[in-house]
Amino acid sequence: MKLPAVKGTRDFYPQDMAIRNFLLDGWKAASLRNGFQEYDAPILEHLKLFQIKSGNEIVEQLFSLTDRGGRDLALRAEITPSLARMVNQRINTLPKPIKWFSLPRLCRAERPQRGRLREFFQWNIDIIGADSVLADAEVIFCAIDYLRQVGLTAKDIVVRISSREILAAVLEQEGIKKNNLDALYNLLDKRAKMPADKFAGLLLKNVPETKRRDKITQLMDAKSLDELSAFIEPASQAQEPMNELKRLFELLEIMGVGRFCEFDMGIVRGLDYYTGVVFEIYDRESKLRAIGGGGRYDNLLKLFGGPSLPATGFGIGDCVLQILLEQKGLLGKPAEKPPDYFLARADRKYLDQTVELAAKLRQAGSSAVFSYKSASLGKQLRQASAQQALNTIILGEELENDQLVIKNMDTGEQRLVQKKHFLEKIAPRKQSKNS
Amino acid sequence: MKLPAVKGTRDFYPQDMAIRNFLLDGWKAASLRNGFQEYDAPILEHLKLFQIKSGNEIVEQLFSLTDRGGRDLALRAEITPSLARMVNQRINTLPKPIKWFSLPRLCRAERPQRGRLREFFQWNIDIIGADSVLADAEVIFCAIDYLRQVGLTAKDIVVRISSREILAAVLEQEGIKKNNLDALYNLLDKRAKMPADKFAGLLLKNVPETKRRDKITQLMDAKSLDELSAFIEPASQAQEPMNELKRLFELLEIMGVGRFCEFDMGIVRGLDYYTGVVFEIYDRESKLRAIGGGGRYDNLLKLFGGPSLPATGFGIGDCVLQILLEQKGLLGKPAEKPPDYFLARADRKYLDQTVELAAKLRQAGSSAVFSYKSASLGKQLRQASAQQALNTIILGEELENDQLVIKNMDTGEQRLVQKKHFLEKIAPRKQSKNS
Repeated sequence: MKLPAVKGTRDFYPQDMAIRNFLLDGWKAASLRNGFQEYDAPILEHLKLFQIKSGNEIVEQLFSLTDRGGRDLALRAEITPSLARMVNQRINTLPKPIKWFSLPRLCRAERPQRGRLREFFQWNIDIIGADSVLADAEVIFCAIDYLRQVGLTAKDIVVRISSREILAAVLEQEGIKKNNLDALYNLLDKRAKMPADKFAGLLLKNVPETKRRDKITQLMDAKSLDELSAFIEPASQAQEPMNELKRLFELLEIMGVGRFCEFDMGIVRGLDYYTGVVFEIYDRESKLRAIGGGGRYDNLLKLFGGPSLPATGFGIGDCVLQILLEQKGLLGKPAEKPPDYFLARADRKYLDQTVELAAKLRQAGSSAVFSYKSASLGKQLRQASAQQALNTIILGEELENDQLVIKNMDTGEQRLVQKKHFLEKIAPRKQSKNS
Repeated sequence: MKLPAVKGTRDFYPQDMAIRNFLLDGWKAASLRNGFQEYDAPILEHLKLFQIKSGNEIVEQLFSLTDRGGRDLALRAEITPSLARMVNQRINTLPKPIKWFSLPRLCRAERPQRGRLREFFQWNIDIIGADSVLADAEVIFCAIDYLRQVGLTAKDIVVRISSREILAAVLEQEGIKKNNLDALYNLLDKRAKMPADKFAGLLLKNVPETKRRDKITQLMDAKSLDELSAFIEPASQAQEPMNELKRLFELLEIMGVGRFCEFDMGIVRGLDYYTGVVFEIYDRESKLRAIGGGGRYDNLLKLFGGPSLPATGFGIGDCVLQILLEQKGLLGKPAEKPPDYFLARADRKYLDQTVELAAKLRQAGSSAVFSYKSASLGKQLRQASAQQALNTIILGEELENDQLVIKNMDTGEQRLVQKKHFLEKIAPRKQSKNS
């Protein structure tokens, strides 16, 4: 009987794992150089945690279960609720602003599609406790810093940026009631993904008044910050967020990533909890789903039983990103590090010395491999090449004089060394404590 | 409303995450230098996969669920079944021997206890396709190589080694029927954990004959390979595995880890699928549960619908290991890397230049942080110290002459540099493709 992997999940054979590590190691490095600290939460949470404020779509797609103790649990489909839970638990002792990142494994029981799987990895960056637009700029810069570092240029990707707060203020200014906003956000968020007449029909249901509808359509068509400004009345609540949005673009320019960023009124984000700047990252050709997205969510901690604390962050998944990097030829062939040494024995009688030397090399921190079978020396040398070993050490009759033959596999150069000197020269292993 | 984490799971705040990374990064480094390649499988598998050959204890303790498609799924409590599935899927194309490692997140719905949690991480090493005792030696060496590298000595830990194959052969030689072996293994495995009279009572149920029972008790009391040899008749099936076990200890001696290893007939392992060498790693004082264990399981791939291929491996969890390292003072305070640069501004008017410099440093691969608030310079310098920044760059009136003040936080030395020269000197970021 042969069992397949669960639908929508992936097996990571070493070459797949090398790609996953390439992505996640890059996320981690970018996070660290931008001053973020790593955290993680359990993959299982109480189902209730996700019912507080995740979008309906997310709750419906949770893998959930009841454990033997009768607890309703679910596999996390996003890490933000866990983050809110953890921060609230230590709200008084954590120094602010909190700059954290995580690389969670997430599960979502949705229909598997290109770029959307049932198990995936996501890069999450969050800044909690800073209301400055500087924090929004840092978050967006950090995403671009990574994407640029793996080789993507402003010709490949674009960060589309808008502001929920401006949208809310203008909609309210136009007479839309506060409790109608969430439904409207959801509709406006999907505008680009549906035909114009379908959108018009749905908008009609939400906003019966023709004049208001026209105004909303015009607003959503705003192509620049200047065009957007024209909608904002002098005493409007939208003035302050408008100034912040302008400052955000200014900061991104100063940080050298202005050409990656564009204003786009159509960016609304599906989740209810965004309160300010929102953004999504796309391939320029818009052939793929969003690479990632995020924004400001100043009310979230409070919704989870904590204090009111400003927050901003993003999530970037591995699936769409991997497709894009493959398309652009930027994945190369990430490979695990080849072994430093392949130990070949000229005769089976040198097996014990081979084993001993391998152990010593490893203890000194070098990677060393050898064949279990005492094949011919030629065959072992071919194995060394196949494994892309950096050096091959040949253990043969030279051992009678305590000597080893070391072959540099790159240059082909062979040299005879005294075994004792060679072992002395191997760098002693670094202390790893506190490293 | 405040929700706790699910019982038996852990939140990883940055300082906890640093410890987890310290453990897992060490596992990974040891795996790579011993010639293993990383793989992973989905955290969700078909429930059936675990019903094939995991021990009953494991199946009972699975977190299982039925998805909307009616599929019975479970969270993995071990990765070996997934490994067998993956290897069988590509059995014809994977070069042998397969030397793979994994660092899976595992879940088990058991009663949380010290060293045993409902969510944990486990280091798994497996060699598939090599029947040589060299492979068993490499697996055990690899575990010790890691444990020794984090500072544990032969005074702290011991690898207790035995052989299921010898046990089976001697038991059969004494007249125990093959289909009674599994129940007997389970009992013998628990011998050290129960009072002698309780064990005697349970053994009586399994083996009614007094003579046989005495022989089994004597066998299990064998304290050395020589004592064990005395039980083995010249034509016994146990002769070959006995020679292998001797050779295993010889190899471990050659590899320089002999003093970590001891023969112990009491090591049987609970899982049914072991077929040869078995071992468990303990703290010398035996105050904790096993740190890890493993052995040879030559029939497993076949049980999962594949061919008959020899295999050997181990698993080491993070929970007991962490407790032991803490007790021995070997955990230190693993910390994320401190920032390379803290950028302090002498006046708020230098904010934009601060932001610009931070972006440039990050793009060049250095980590750089700054405060969102324009606090006094003194306060910013205290923040730099609190974050253990390696250097602080002060942006002040020196900028009028295009100069920066760079303070080495370790030595306290301050120097004035031309901004232009400083930026030119920062190492250009390395190409990460194919890295």
